[in-house]
Amino acid sequence: MTNKKIPDIIIGRLPLYLRALERMTTEGAIVTSSKELGEWVGISAAQIRKDISQFGEFGKQGTGYNIDFLSKKLREIMNIDRVWDVAIIGAGDIGHGLARYQGFLDRGFRVALAFDIDPEKIGTKIGDVVVEDISKMVVSINDADVKIAMIAVPADNAQDVAEKLVKAGVKAILNYATIIINVPEDVRVQYIDPATHLQWMTYYL
Amino acid sequence: MTNKKIPDIIIGRLPLYLRALERMTTEGAIVTSSKELGEWVGISAAQIRKDISQFGEFGKQGTGYNIDFLSKKLREIMNIDRVWDVAIIGAGDIGHGLARYQGFLDRGFRVALAFDIDPEKIGTKIGDVVVEDISKMVVSINDADVKIAMIAVPADNAQDVAEKLVKAGVKAILNYATIIINVPEDVRVQYIDPATHLQWMTYYL
Repeated sequence: MTNKKIPDIIIGRLPLYLRALERMTTEGAIVTSSKELGEWVGISAAQIRKDISQFGEFGKQGTGYNIDFLSKKLREIMNIDRVWDVAIIGAGDIGHGLARYQGFLDRGFRVALAFDIDPEKIGTKIGDVVVEDISKMVVSINDADVKIAMIAVPADNAQDVAEKLVKAGVKAILNYATIIINVPEDVRVQYIDPATHLQWMTYYL
Repeated sequence: MTNKKIPDIIIGRLPLYLRALERMTTEGAIVTSSKELGEWVGISAAQIRKDISQFGEFGKQGTGYNIDFLSKKLREIMNIDRVWDVAIIGAGDIGHGLARYQGFLDRGFRVALAFDIDPEKIGTKIGDVVVEDISKMVVSINDADVKIAMIAVPADNAQDVAEKLVKAGVKAILNYATIIINVPEDVRVQYIDPATHLQWMTYYL
């Protein structure tokens, strides 16, 4: 893999390609084509070929892509050929759902830490982890060298939590709070906001 | 608004613009510029101007955009200058979180129906709605003329649920199950999958 700058929009499509490839694997497929992969993810075959060729030559004209090989390469590119420890901040409904979410482990992530401010929740177990006092968050995350966190606290607390996460060394935040958070440029933020996702569809209704 | 086809990628940015504008409003701002809006959403000022100009002339060179006016126009364009009833399928952690989610009503959506297969959940209340038996889903959704649904059932059941939703007349599905669902072309699907969102960031770590 070269070190040239790959556009964000291409990087953004890689998880979708990988998810489609994983699904093909569970259906017993061995090889696929840019046309078939494109149909799975709703992107043209030409765009798929162009995207994947950014990273090297992973398929052959006429024979297509070996699914296992391409999946492995995509995981390497996305840095998920390892398991990342993740912290959950907020042990309410969303935090619980995330802690019990079955889709993390085989896709590169493990919930390692959870925090809440509520004394009734501290010490209880969500998923496989025990909820810690949020006042210990910066130290615990720093000690465990966790770089990824999911914010599932009310909107009013999200900015404060985000700043503490940055202090703890977190570099990637998945934010479920319905608020835009401000973090330094070297920290990535992704938003999961059901209302925004619904708004993406109402235009077409 | 003309009827020319607007690219999906532009439509996809409108909810982000609206969210930033709403946030500016809560901070007391009256006008904004393409530069400021661009900084909120991480897009160039030129791109903002280009996107918004697809729909008409909503700002003036030198004076910028009136936030209220632009918000109203964006809501009209996205068809959220009304409230859409939404159904939740699955009353587990995620369904509960969605039912209690505070960000829907002032952004165009109201949870009107909820369904589950578990007899212990049927008849209980999540948020403001009573969970109905999933066997009544097609009839209930059809009767209530609900066009939008959120799938929060296990992956194994998601395709079956999706097909029933299509039968009930649903045209937009927000899917929390970790599986790609197949629906007719006139039905839109959005995926909320925390693992995919995390994978969008690991490349940069």
